[in-house]
This record gives sequence, structure tokens and C-alpha cells, in this order.
Amino acid sequence: MLSKDSYLVGLIGSGIGPSLSPALHEREADRQGLRYLYRIIDIDALGVPPEAVGDLVRAARDLGFDGLNITHPCKRLVIEHLDALDPQAEALGAVNTVVFEDGRAIGHNTDVTGFAASFARGLPDARLERVVQLGAGGAGAAVAHAMLTLGAGHVTVTDALPERAVALAAGLNRRFGDGRAAVATPDRLAALLADADGIVHATPTGTAAHPGLPLPARLLHPELWVAEVVYRPLETELLRTARAVGCAALDGGGMAVFQAADAFRLITGREPDAARMLADIAELAGAVSVRD
Amino acid sequence: MLSKDSYLVGLIGSGIGPSLSPALHEREADRQGLRYLYRIIDIDALGVPPEAVGDLVRAARDLGFDGLNITHPCKRLVIEHLDALDPQAEALGAVNTVVFEDGRAIGHNTDVTGFAASFARGLPDARLERVVQLGAGGAGAAVAHAMLTLGAGHVTVTDALPERAVALAAGLNRRFGDGRAAVATPDRLAALLADADGIVHATPTGTAAHPGLPLPARLLHPELWVAEVVYRPLETELLRTARAVGCAALDGGGMAVFQAADAFRLITGREPDAARMLADIAELAGAVSVRD
Repeated sequence: MLSKDSYLVGLIGSGIGPSLSPALHEREADRQGLRYLYRIIDIDALGVPPEAVGDLVRAARDLGFDGLNITHPCKRLVIEHLDALDPQAEALGAVNTVVFEDGRAIGHNTDVTGFAASFARGLPDARLERVVQLGAGGAGAAVAHAMLTLGAGHVTVTDALPERAVALAAGLNRRFGDGRAAVATPDRLAALLADADGIVHATPTGTAAHPGLPLPARLLHPELWVAEVVYRPLETELLRTARAVGCAALDGGGMAVFQAADAFRLITGREPDAARMLADIAELAGAVSVRD
Repeated sequence: MLSKDSYLVGLIGSGIGPSLSPALHEREADRQGLRYLYRIIDIDALGVPPEAVGDLVRAARDLGFDGLNITHPCKRLVIEHLDALDPQAEALGAVNTVVFEDGRAIGHNTDVTGFAASFARGLPDARLERVVQLGAGGAGAAVAHAMLTLGAGHVTVTDALPERAVALAAGLNRRFGDGRAAVATPDRLAALLADADGIVHATPTGTAAHPGLPLPARLLHPELWVAEVVYRPLETELLRTARAVGCAALDGGGMAVFQAADAFRLITGREPDAARMLADIAELAGAVSVRD
């Protein structure tokens, strides 16, 4: 073979059976006329601990995989098993995409670039001076880095686990400069939001497993934009409530699409058509939410 | 997913970079509208010994492969790592196809069924009372079992390594009944062939790496049929010479196609179109032989 004419990709993580990534990648590849196969590698189904990610990455390399997506709870654990990291993954300390190049495993993070691309596309005129972010877990870390990369003036982070918020804010200040990030306890949300430009929501609240709102509805007001990380359902209770109040709102489908599109580009070297992928996720997330 | 809509298959062996199996499988799958990807897993390229086949099979199962082909030098070594064998593989003591079913690895041998199908199609009227076979290696064992399965009265085996021929004949007599198989030294070929119905050729002679004839041309006569295992080139010097003498002749492409077709059927549960695959191999083996 003179050039790659087929691509084998996998997703390693826990509880990922219902992931939309196979369909997102394979549909775009089909439109580009590529032979492309995306396999789910669920550590729960295999009965192996998260630490097995290193063995799985090596096995994927040996068996001819071209790339991998990595998700919870392996995004940090995978790093010690890679040969190199791109600057984004290095700064975040988390990898969601591995590309095999000449037998070497290179780690990337397209959660950051994916959220940034989605935000820039969906809320291009949003003011970014004062951003409040709910959630400081893995997704929260990625989107906070994305917001500061996009030029946010200041991000205040809250989390049910305060030490997680503290660690994230410290990392943000190290990377982007002192004073760019701070931590708040949930009881300060009312005061913060009265004066904020927008909210980034990065907790699981709003999924079928965690229904409801991540904050009291009365704290929303029309001057706020609301950006959601949850994409299943695409229309969370938070987004529905925010739109009713008059907020500009961004659903989580864009992040899911752009992180997949960026991974697709890294793995294939080809430019994905994000508009077509956004249409896919509207269809896929809608269809799947019925089952959730 | 309610039913399998994609297939991931690999080939484990040594020096298999130029194998035609990926193209044979993928072309047929494309015509059937299946998402199908066939990967080469070359132990030489990986720098692992043949005994690593067990680890590779387990890794393939864990990473979502649906099946594997196994070739030299792993066809026997793989057996202890499988959960079950079909009767053909059990009798031969060699596996060339592994199918994963609900996490279990089942071994099959489609070299035997593949050669039998090719022979039945290509030389349907051949007399089978007295068959002489050159070569008692892995391919030789498979085709000898195939000939006796097809009803050959008696097979005489020769090999440059006499103990290998002795072991094969002993195994054939155990399976098919005493007196069905015997061993001969090469100096007896002239006498044997004067009185034989046909020759099965199962040594590497005639490939680019081993050019030439596997026996003196003067031993061929028009009453003999000649069946070849080598398929690259499709027209070996043996076949060219045999056809010039007036022998009915069968090239090795049919065995390559039918073993692939049988593996495809085992892995997918779908019926391959062998006629289309025979056209593929004529094109592929022709194209590749220029490079060999």
C-alpha cells in the first residue's frame, strides 16, 4: 500500500456502549469514501481496571489501529504509556485522542479544541469578561482551558468537590496567568451570576441518569449566555429553561461533533465537514435520547 | 446495534505484508455492502516470536475483532489458545481461521475445505485412484486431507524432509483408514507418476523466491492432471510445462479464493460469491506478481 486507504479506530473507556462516536466517525468517513471502522473497547465489558489502558493501547498499535479515542476514566492514566503529547494535552494533563505514527503513540486533546470550535461557532458574539463554570471534572477541565484559550477574562469554577475546583483553578492560573481563574462555593452563585456574562455547564446534570437543573432557575437572566456540555439529550432542562428566560444558549452537540471532527482530522489527515456532522448528531442524539 | 453491521478481521503470521487476503475479503464485503476491514498483523514486523500468537488472539478478541486468519508459522501454535475447534481443524491439528463468538475463540481450517472446493470446481472429472503429492508441510497436510476427503483412493507423499512425509502419512492413515496414504522418496517419482492419475504440488517451488520446477519435466505426461498450491504467480513453471504437455491443470488461485470465501462465510454468516472472488484473484495475483 502506497498510502493509507483504510482506518481502524477505537474508543477506550468505561460504560461507553451507547457512545455516538462510532456513528459520527463512520458516517463522515463514508461520505469521504474512506474504509473506516470504529470499535468500542469498554473496560467494564472486558472486566479490566482503568489501569489496563496501557496494555490496550499497545495492543491496538500492534493490531493495526490507526488511532484511538480515550475517555473516562482513562484520560490521565493513558499518558504514561504514550511516546509524546501535543501541547494541549500536555497542558491539560489529559488525552482523549491517540494517533499511531510509525509505531509511536502520540497523545492529543480534542475536547479542548472541540469545545473552543463549538463555542466560537455557536456563540460568536458572546462577552467573555466574567464566566462562571459549573463542574471541575474531566470535561470541566477541558472546557475551562478552552474558554481561557478563547480569551475569557476570568473564569470562576464551582464543583461539588471543592478540592477539585481548587486544583483546576490553580492549573488554569499556572497556564494562563495569575488571577484568570478562581473558585467559588455554590452559595455564591447568585451573586456571581448577577454580574456574569455567561455560564458554562460541565456537570452530568441534565442527562437521563441525573435529571434536573444544575442551579436554581431564578438565577438565570437574559443577559447571560449558557453553554452546555451535556449532549444527550441535546435539549437539557438547563437549556430549555435558559432559552425560556431569553438567554443565548449553546447545546453540547457542538463539542461532541468538533472533538470528533478534530480527532478525525488528526487520524486521517483529511478535513471533516463539521456541518454535516452537526446534522448527524442532531439525528443521532435525538434518536438515542428516546432509549436513555 | 441489533445485528452486526461491521466486521474487523486480521491475519496473523510471518512475512505476510504482501498477502492478498485483505483485498480478497474487502472487495467481496464491499460488493455485499458490508463495512469490513482486514488488517495484517505480521509477527516479523512486530518483532515477536510465533509463540506470541496467543497474546495476539486475546488482544484481537478484546479490541473488537470478529475473526482472524492464521498462517505460517502459527497454525499449530494457536490451538492451545482457543476455546474450541471444528472437526476439520481438530483432525488436521492446524487452524487457519478463528471466529470470535460471544467472547469465545473457535478454530477452523478453511485450507482443507478451500482446496477441496477449488479442486471439485476446477477438475471435476479427475480420476483420483492414485495421487502423488509433492510437499508435506503445512499446506501439504491441508491438501492431502482435502484429497482424501474428496475420495482419493491413495495418496503418496514426498518431501525433502522425509520425517515430515512420514508423519503426514501416518496421520492420514489414522484419519482415513490404513493404506490410504504412503511415503515415497523422490527417486521413486518416475515410477509412481508413470502409473498415477494426478499430481498435487504443495511445495514453494515456482514462487519468485523459489523459481523452477519441483520435478523433472520429462516425468509429466498427458494422462496426469496437475493441481498447484502456489498462486503467485498464478501460472507457475510447473503449470506452464504441464499444460504444454497436455495435462489438465489447476492453478493455486482457486484454493486461495475458496479458503478466503469459507473464512468470510464463517465470520460474517453471509454467502460469498466465489466467481467474483476468482476474478479478483486473477487481477490481484497478476498485478502483484510484477512486484515479487
